[in-house]
Amino acid sequence: MKVVIIGAGNVATHLAKALHLANVQIVQVWSYHYTNAKLLADQVEATAIESLTSIDEHADLCLISVKDDAIEEIAQQLTHFKGVIAHTSGSVHLNILANSKKYGVFYPLQTFSKDKELSFTTIPLCLEANDNATLQFLKKLASQLSSRVVEIDSNKRKILHLAAVFACNFTNHFYALAEEVLEAHQLEFDILRPLITETAAKVQQALPLTVQTGPAVRNDEQTLKKHEELLLQQPQLLEIYKIVSESIKKTR
Amino acid sequence: MKVVIIGAGNVATHLAKALHLANVQIVQVWSYHYTNAKLLADQVEATAIESLTSIDEHADLCLISVKDDAIEEIAQQLTHFKGVIAHTSGSVHLNILANSKKYGVFYPLQTFSKDKELSFTTIPLCLEANDNATLQFLKKLASQLSSRVVEIDSNKRKILHLAAVFACNFTNHFYALAEEVLEAHQLEFDILRPLITETAAKVQQALPLTVQTGPAVRNDEQTLKKHEELLLQQPQLLEIYKIVSESIKKTR
Repeated sequence: MKVVIIGAGNVATHLAKALHLANVQIVQVWSYHYTNAKLLADQVEATAIESLTSIDEHADLCLISVKDDAIEEIAQQLTHFKGVIAHTSGSVHLNILANSKKYGVFYPLQTFSKDKELSFTTIPLCLEANDNATLQFLKKLASQLSSRVVEIDSNKRKILHLAAVFACNFTNHFYALAEEVLEAHQLEFDILRPLITETAAKVQQALPLTVQTGPAVRNDEQTLKKHEELLLQQPQLLEIYKIVSESIKKTR
Repeated sequence: MKVVIIGAGNVATHLAKALHLANVQIVQVWSYHYTNAKLLADQVEATAIESLTSIDEHADLCLISVKDDAIEEIAQQLTHFKGVIAHTSGSVHLNILANSKKYGVFYPLQTFSKDKELSFTTIPLCLEANDNATLQFLKKLASQLSSRVVEIDSNKRKILHLAAVFACNFTNHFYALAEEVLEAHQLEFDILRPLITETAAKVQQALPLTVQTGPAVRNDEQTLKKHEELLLQQPQLLEIYKIVSESIKKTR
């Protein structure tokens, strides 16, 4: 199987490397900036291309892994492509690719950072396609990367992406807010790391509602009040502390 | 060394077991409910006691691991105790034990659930004491459990506890909110678990501000608007989505 990668950002890079590692041939890489395409192409034994018109017509799959609002424009330049065209976005509808013959979605539900290696084997790969043959094609490819391949339509994928914002992006922001609390008192973030690891580990077996701890779920008014007093100099943190504590109380 | 454990909740249970595993002798366990004391005592080869007046006067340490607002009352019943008295709370001041001769704080910065085993070796143990001899005594004990023993005074410990609420309790609540988003559309929480693990793993090396991802930090107004529309039927989630996204935008 021959794959063309469009994009050279975090998702494109991780996907290309994982496919290469699984012995899938990456033939070409394109990016807005040729130097980025070259950088990624060199890592996966592919050729960097300067123009989308140079795409290998014999490739089986073209994976569009660029920012959401650029997908449509790129897809319109690829209508001559005979293989399968798929994007990797959580929130863009399948139909944005409907000008092609065979198209689909190949969405890895994970957070990718450029410098952090990760294994694809447990990453849920969420697939969708315009016909069954294309779906089977994507499934076969996905199962070479991960043991967790799921078929999810565009509407449910949007929900999944939204839930991921709560579970990942917002969670990371609360790590950052914790750092802000510590920093104001010359304490190091490092001391929280084991706690963060364990908090994530706890919900690997249990559901989060069943393992909620802390003053809000205990309705420990005394501690809540003490914490609010400690945040008087940081009004934004105070506001968030109050809102989230109220939200937790409602789950009791 | 002989230790008496006061309390039989999550922290008391984990601490008693960890000490027992480190070959520290637990001589007695007391709890409000004798059956709970007996349950824990049986696991650590100790004797459950029904009354605080039965405390072994030859014990070296009495660890008070009960809910915050019960610590003072218990300590007042232990003024005759000749060993070190220490509580395990993140937010209660050292001086609450000042009626004793030798007293301190032994605060493990971690989230404990009754049914989940965990290793103490990486848990930060935050210590404080009324004199240097007592501090050295607690340090010696702590170093038998963890490689991460830190001396932190009551004021900084309060801050640490507050930061832990953001990094742990609030974070877990956002896992629960993600579950709520999925549930409304018949999707399973399980699919988010690898993402949650990786989100926590990312900040083990990096600082959270440097690895923030998602639509808010990209200022991707289109996706933010789409997400808000998806939450129109869940006004509480919508409010939180907006507030946290605004908070993330300010970190850009």
